[in-house]
Amino acid sequence: MEARPLATPEEAWRIASSLRYRHIEGTVVAVVQDVETKEVLMVGHMDPIAVVLTLTTGLAHYYSTTRKRIWLKGETSGHYQIVKEFRSDCDGDAVVIKVVQIGAACHTGSRSCFESKYSLIKALKLSLRHG
Amino acid sequence: MEARPLATPEEAWRIASSLRYRHIEGTVVAVVQDVETKEVLMVGHMDPIAVVLTLTTGLAHYYSTTRKRIWLKGETSGHYQIVKEFRSDCDGDAVVIKVVQIGAACHTGSRSCFESKYSLIKALKLSLRHG
Repeated sequence: MEARPLATPEEAWRIASSLRYRHIEGTVVAVVQDVETKEVLMVGHMDPIAVVLTLTTGLAHYYSTTRKRIWLKGETSGHYQIVKEFRSDCDGDAVVIKVVQIGAACHTGSRSCFESKYSLIKALKLSLRHG
Repeated sequence: MEARPLATPEEAWRIASSLRYRHIEGTVVAVVQDVETKEVLMVGHMDPIAVVLTLTTGLAHYYSTTRKRIWLKGETSGHYQIVKEFRSDCDGDAVVIKVVQIGAACHTGSRSCFESKYSLIKALKLSLRHG
């Protein structure tokens, strides 16, 4: 599957300029959803350059708040994210992107960063216990 | 629909203690998904107390990084979020909650904070233009 630009460079700069980079290290929160299943795969951060690169290449780029640099998701792993949709929220400090995930989204090798069996708690549990 | 606890107070404190509050004002990022449609409704922040209150009541609580206080979503609007599932991510600095949204998730009155018609860009657009 081939990545396609979501915006021209001019449109991308306009969109990047409209966001509010009020999170750590001057970023917006980027929520990444599988375009088919709607599963949340990971949460990353984008600075203005990462937003522009994402929109103009169609491949997800982030700002690493630990390594203090832009990274192309998949640059070492090959686990690219092909971006099909980009939305910002009502106050411009968060975006949701819908992607086709190549391989694993998580550095642990899991498809999603949220799929550890220890991480899941369902309301069902207590209702069963009390039911 | 009635809210049910997702954890006992002891379990909730254990879970809250396991997270890494490395985002603004000592919080984790909380991504809120509609439990049925999987649509992302909003992105909020939780401090340890908001995590415990969410898990023990089954109603979403957040930490407002602007008002500098805990808030029960819906406390003034009546637009509560009944939490059905709570997951943390691989490095413990983000959670995804799946909710039944009563009324609107967004303070603008929209069901989702991400549904402004101006916020949406699809890869389709350029492919149509070039197609």
